[in-house]
Amino acid sequence: MRIAVLAGGVGGARFVRALTEVVDPRQVTVIVNVGDDLEVHGLYVSPDLDTLLYTLSGLGDDERGWGRAGETWNASETIELLGGETWFQLGDRDIGLHVVRTEAMRRGDSLSAVTTRLARSVGLEVALLPATDDRLRTRIRTPAGEFELQEWFVARGHRDTVNEVVYEGAEAARPAAGVLEGLEAAELIAIAPSNPFVSIGPILAVSAIRAAVERRRDRVVAVSPLIGGRAVKGPADAMFTSLAGGTGAAQVADCYKDLAAALVLDEADADDAEAVAERGVRPLVTTTLMSEPDARRALVETVLGLTRAA
Amino acid sequence: MRIAVLAGGVGGARFVRALTEVVDPRQVTVIVNVGDDLEVHGLYVSPDLDTLLYTLSGLGDDERGWGRAGETWNASETIELLGGETWFQLGDRDIGLHVVRTEAMRRGDSLSAVTTRLARSVGLEVALLPATDDRLRTRIRTPAGEFELQEWFVARGHRDTVNEVVYEGAEAARPAAGVLEGLEAAELIAIAPSNPFVSIGPILAVSAIRAAVERRRDRVVAVSPLIGGRAVKGPADAMFTSLAGGTGAAQVADCYKDLAAALVLDEADADDAEAVAERGVRPLVTTTLMSEPDARRALVETVLGLTRAA
Repeated sequence: MRIAVLAGGVGGARFVRALTEVVDPRQVTVIVNVGDDLEVHGLYVSPDLDTLLYTLSGLGDDERGWGRAGETWNASETIELLGGETWFQLGDRDIGLHVVRTEAMRRGDSLSAVTTRLARSVGLEVALLPATDDRLRTRIRTPAGEFELQEWFVARGHRDTVNEVVYEGAEAARPAAGVLEGLEAAELIAIAPSNPFVSIGPILAVSAIRAAVERRRDRVVAVSPLIGGRAVKGPADAMFTSLAGGTGAAQVADCYKDLAAALVLDEADADDAEAVAERGVRPLVTTTLMSEPDARRALVETVLGLTRAA
Repeated sequence: MRIAVLAGGVGGARFVRALTEVVDPRQVTVIVNVGDDLEVHGLYVSPDLDTLLYTLSGLGDDERGWGRAGETWNASETIELLGGETWFQLGDRDIGLHVVRTEAMRRGDSLSAVTTRLARSVGLEVALLPATDDRLRTRIRTPAGEFELQEWFVARGHRDTVNEVVYEGAEAARPAAGVLEGLEAAELIAIAPSNPFVSIGPILAVSAIRAAVERRRDRVVAVSPLIGGRAVKGPADAMFTSLAGGTGAAQVADCYKDLAAALVLDEADADDAEAVAERGVRPLVTTTLMSEPDARRALVETVLGLTRAA
């Protein structure tokens, strides 16, 4: 069964890893957010693609959820010593990847072409694709001003209330090679338990991708990133409060009702099932925390169940 | 007393450090070879400037003579894992510097401007200047073909016999800001015990620098890089054999006779003193190995003696 997944960083990576514990990874196409890509000291950094690559290859720091295991920070220490900016710290092992990618992109390779090569060289069997090769940048509007995603998230510690999220460049952005094909060939399209505003939103801001997902709504299942109204990691709950007026599964369903036939929600949010159904989205209740093998399997089986039932 | 030094990497750095143990470093301008600069994975690497910077700031690996103390190699390990070229390995701490420099140069800063900032940020008091901000590349012609300096030196282990050394771009290269001023203001110009063909040669290949040194020949003293016909480090002796027909102090004098009034040679080469004098260059015999404090001081005092005697 061919599966396409729309994914952000940590939650997306853990979901895809759980999925490939159950299904053949060669059947999986992962379409990844690039809205928080940035240049750090002239190096092209793609936080979500990197988290996917590291997590799925086993190179990642599992506890932290991002970056490399056994990472060292000597280059950053030198950059600081030399008076360079260090609000976005780069690990040494991580820099190795950025250097290879940046060099290839400066030679004219697309992000997707480089990503495919990198994924192959660490042994990934899933198809790992950036949503777009064009420049698309998530910007966060707050009472303190507008910031790039990582600037708001890292440099400012995501403390500013988010009034609006905009996707700069989305109008002109075209899906990367393989993205539409992956969506069209999929018997199941899963929206990973990632932040709908800053992880999934930038992917769907590419109009051709949104249209392709909408066309296949019957085959689309989203997984709520909230458990009991809280994000497992990151600022999703605060963003739901300011942008969607609440942190229930109903608000998650509001984000995806035009796109997904079903929403997987955690048992802790079972009370919201009715409100989800009222929005025309089938609620699928299970455990969504991916820390335990049994729970992961239950989550994946629930997601796969959409198609099996259909 | 103002002093200008023409310097290559390891020998040049040790000589300047010895010099600044005796004289006020604020009086010293170091004009450095850039002929073996190269791009490694899109990062601008300047091996000799870096060796000077590390050695003089105390950040260097003293035993190895180049690179940083306490260096780690995790970025390079990743580059290798990802299938990137690794014949020129970059240490993690070293990469920190390359990243800062490359970013500044991509923004339009000159190599000399960046170098001045970097030198200041690690507390250097000498003026550290690249010979030129223009592109100047040393190329090595061998029976196996023509190579860039570092390619011949590192990737091929400097095993190919050198038939000719050429300085690509030298004709158009102009001295970096401060270089001519440093030479003109100097009461003493020292040519460090660096390789005349691939370390000092590229500096003097900039015609305005050569002319400025020639004009002040009376104030110029060179230090032989050979001791008993052997190089302390590196391939200088083999190059002397193939390019100058011998490894005596006389051959060193041949390299510098139009430029230097005196040549410091090691006691081990005292027998060559007469041949040096025959070339119109005053031989100054002392110990030139810089590993012992007393010997270093003797060497520096001998160099300084040129002006004191004059």
